[in-house]
Amino acid sequence: MIRIRAQQIARGLSQIIGREFLKENIKTSIKQPTQSQSPQHPWSSVSSVRTIAMLPWPFSQSRDFSLPNSSWGSDMRRLYEHYNSQCEVETEEGGKKWGAWRRLPSYNRSIKFATGGVYLSKIIQSKARLFTRSVKEPGAAFEYVMFVNKEEEKCVCVFQAGHLLEGPPGHVHGGAIATMIDSVTGTHATYLSGPVMTANLNINYRSPIPLGSTVLLTCSLDKKEGRKTFVSCQVTNTDGSKLHTEATGG
Amino acid sequence: MIRIRAQQIARGLSQIIGREFLKENIKTSIKQPTQSQSPQHPWSSVSSVRTIAMLPWPFSQSRDFSLPNSSWGSDMRRLYEHYNSQCEVETEEGGKKWGAWRRLPSYNRSIKFATGGVYLSKIIQSKARLFTRSVKEPGAAFEYVMFVNKEEEKCVCVFQAGHLLEGPPGHVHGGAIATMIDSVTGTHATYLSGPVMTANLNINYRSPIPLGSTVLLTCSLDKKEGRKTFVSCQVTNTDGSKLHTEATGG
Repeated sequence: MIRIRAQQIARGLSQIIGREFLKENIKTSIKQPTQSQSPQHPWSSVSSVRTIAMLPWPFSQSRDFSLPNSSWGSDMRRLYEHYNSQCEVETEEGGKKWGAWRRLPSYNRSIKFATGGVYLSKIIQSKARLFTRSVKEPGAAFEYVMFVNKEEEKCVCVFQAGHLLEGPPGHVHGGAIATMIDSVTGTHATYLSGPVMTANLNINYRSPIPLGSTVLLTCSLDKKEGRKTFVSCQVTNTDGSKLHTEATGG
Repeated sequence: MIRIRAQQIARGLSQIIGREFLKENIKTSIKQPTQSQSPQHPWSSVSSVRTIAMLPWPFSQSRDFSLPNSSWGSDMRRLYEHYNSQCEVETEEGGKKWGAWRRLPSYNRSIKFATGGVYLSKIIQSKARLFTRSVKEPGAAFEYVMFVNKEEEKCVCVFQAGHLLEGPPGHVHGGAIATMIDSVTGTHATYLSGPVMTANLNINYRSPIPLGSTVLLTCSLDKKEGRKTFVSCQVTNTDGSKLHTEATGG
């Protein structure tokens, strides 16, 4: 993944890491402009946060697609609960504090007046939806939720593949698997290095994924080189005993 | 791409190369069983074509998605006409004969009672749709048509990316590009070597593709090694002057 420059920042941010997360980080950046310039800060490349913050995002009206719905099977719910319970933990005094993991919200719209959009017809601009969230029927296509662990530099995604993702009969399309890998590696690299775009994706398909099943994508940092961030991703069954696909993204 | 064995043949065939194409080849195989066993024949690994031929495919009721519809823009139509006009050419006597290219039909259902399907719930089996053809609204997602050239061992795909495929705002999602690459390289390898499944996909994203635009995927054979077929694929703008993405599949 290659870190993108200030003028490109509007692109891809909201759908990758979720608007609320971005909103929160932007607030922080505005309040503490000097701190946000630290080289270690994930948003260090955000040189003009004010422009982004002024964009008219309808935060309150957007549905967060990464929350449980009636289509989620038992595997999906169990893994969601497993990671979600580690997002907020109880303190010794009976209060609550942030845990090791953090759930990333997910929306189906990207920034409305982004740079890329000016070249498009108004019809396409108004109807555009994030690929992985473009099907309205719950459970029909991509059902997923991502969690990040800052300390361990790790990102996981619980993914339930719906009936509209078929490739080989009864199994998930290789392109749908690639789509989830691209989304998770892109999200993780953005979390680690600030806004990035995928430059390379190398995928090895080991074993087909049955349609309707839930799998776990686990993404970890390989290395950072200048503006480039390299991550790797494994797609396994829910207990990790069977490897379906493995990939590297850079 | 790794060639798959006889018992796996039902998987993926119809959605990869189209039912009519398959039907025609099966007929040929039944009429000329000895010829179909030639190692050079693309269906040489089909050891039991009778089983496949007996499957209840509703050929006449299926919509061929690779024919022009009202959502196709001028670029899409022009390139379709360009290749389609080379599928059937006039002879000196005023008759018609097959040309260098051949259009591959495309459907949204896979074989109903395929091996993979037995593990799935009946609901998923009945609702399953090919990922690239699962959105009903014309022009909203993947609009594409593939042509193969047997002599040149080449396959092209004209692809118009709809508004539901958004990744970075105003541009096509990397996963949607990967999906088309997987489909085209898989189709081409199947055409060259018989039924295959993708084992590896290595994608380099050079330049983002604006949402709503039409691009050309050009796929060629790199080499064959035993059961493995290696192909490469380039995604360019319609006149080939701009490289958007390049990939290898094996």
